[in-house]
Amino acid sequence: MYTDDYVHGYSSRENRRLIDQATTLTELLHHDTIFPAGATVLEAGCGVGAQTVALAGNNPQARITSIDISTASLEAAQAHVAAAGQGNVTFRQADIFDLPFAPASFDHVFVCFVLEHLADPLAALTRLMRVTRPGGSITVIEGDHGSAYFHPDSADARAAIRCLVDLQAEMGGDSLIGRRLYPLLVGAGLQSVSVSPRMVYADASKPQLVEGFTRNTFTAMVEGVREQAIERGLIEAARWDKGIRDLYRTAEHDGVFCYTFFKAVGFVQPFNAFLSSTAP
Amino acid sequence: MYTDDYVHGYSSRENRRLIDQATTLTELLHHDTIFPAGATVLEAGCGVGAQTVALAGNNPQARITSIDISTASLEAAQAHVAAAGQGNVTFRQADIFDLPFAPASFDHVFVCFVLEHLADPLAALTRLMRVTRPGGSITVIEGDHGSAYFHPDSADARAAIRCLVDLQAEMGGDSLIGRRLYPLLVGAGLQSVSVSPRMVYADASKPQLVEGFTRNTFTAMVEGVREQAIERGLIEAARWDKGIRDLYRTAEHDGVFCYTFFKAVGFVQPFNAFLSSTAP
Repeated sequence: MYTDDYVHGYSSRENRRLIDQATTLTELLHHDTIFPAGATVLEAGCGVGAQTVALAGNNPQARITSIDISTASLEAAQAHVAAAGQGNVTFRQADIFDLPFAPASFDHVFVCFVLEHLADPLAALTRLMRVTRPGGSITVIEGDHGSAYFHPDSADARAAIRCLVDLQAEMGGDSLIGRRLYPLLVGAGLQSVSVSPRMVYADASKPQLVEGFTRNTFTAMVEGVREQAIERGLIEAARWDKGIRDLYRTAEHDGVFCYTFFKAVGFVQPFNAFLSSTAP
Repeated sequence: MYTDDYVHGYSSRENRRLIDQATTLTELLHHDTIFPAGATVLEAGCGVGAQTVALAGNNPQARITSIDISTASLEAAQAHVAAAGQGNVTFRQADIFDLPFAPASFDHVFVCFVLEHLADPLAALTRLMRVTRPGGSITVIEGDHGSAYFHPDSADARAAIRCLVDLQAEMGGDSLIGRRLYPLLVGAGLQSVSVSPRMVYADASKPQLVEGFTRNTFTAMVEGVREQAIERGLIEAARWDKGIRDLYRTAEHDGVFCYTFFKAVGFVQPFNAFLSSTAP
């Protein structure tokens, strides 16, 4: 599953794209993820550390453990966090489905842009809930590629995005997962689940967002699966290229681009609630 | 153009739907439309007064003139505003394209859910700018039916929504206008244009929003064009009915519904700027 040609690859150009993306979106996505001093936090699936830096920066007094299945990603994440001068993160190679932690090891869990890649996100949540203390929280952030729309509208651009959605689905993922975080977390048994959409709206009055998001994050991400999409016959090359041009077209002076991320927070049932719920 | 079977009709059931919609959305859309005491405000296309009540309520010291082309709508609006005990609104029958006002008659203009129905929204804006004083503002609020997505996803539900979009386009309107307010206002010559999306996100943790928006506003609106959509051969009856069922399905305990309105504000060029821009 973790091959080099997977949808979100591990090349250094890709690393840079992921870090650009994180810088642009940090405030929008992470400003309200604040844990108490001394809290232990598990970041599951840290990748190259793009979100880790935001998490650690916003929570300098929390003790963060960041895991990833890829040692190459972990090394990049470690370098990234070191460059930011952050000392409150411990890295460890681990699989979300086979966590090397005792039950209730962490106060809180943080998962960002990970569930979209998993064939069984519900099972992943269940594993993560097990290592969270009763009453602790689980925060999940995901995108939703079906939330992308733009002006000028373009059927070719929509077709190119659809290729990315289909490729990710072929790999067992779901790039439309954002919209269903609420039922997913509730279905996993989390309590008091709340979801807040984080919409990115980019027009020419926000040139940094147009550059950082429309061009360098979203369109660059779609562009990255060109070969796979064409090789697998999902789209013809000419239509693909037109679609990508049309996506870049939305970054011009009269263009508009919209995309929405979803942030969900739920709580592991407190111990006394376990007791009362199992009472006769 | 203004026949009884137009997309948004004038029946009393429809009036009630529009008023329900306004109550649910008032805070989201209107809370930040506040004009100075004594300001003169033109509400262009007030319809049955659903937004008028919010505008007048938030601006009790502004002097509002609300116009509509339909005398029947104006009567409903007048009754609605009277019932709310608001005394700062004057109603007048008028056509946006043939305004009975001298240039620069108003400090500000407010247009909500109107441009989506016009074949030439740019020309309408130009007419409205003419009756606004230099330096005054124009506020535009519109929806965008292409911003609707939901869980569970359904191709039939999307097809039903598409019928509404196509019917509105047949009448010369554009129900995808929200995403292009920025270029529209800039293109009309308005200055310092800013657009803010107002996303409605409804899951089971917000039962009033599910009821008020997912069911009674959006799905009811789509449902309202059933006969036209089927008569014109845009969709088969069975598929339509399945699509509507699927939309209602998104209002169940594990469903999610997303829709985005767009609010744009721009300013008419001040007089001194006119001078300098026409200087050699």
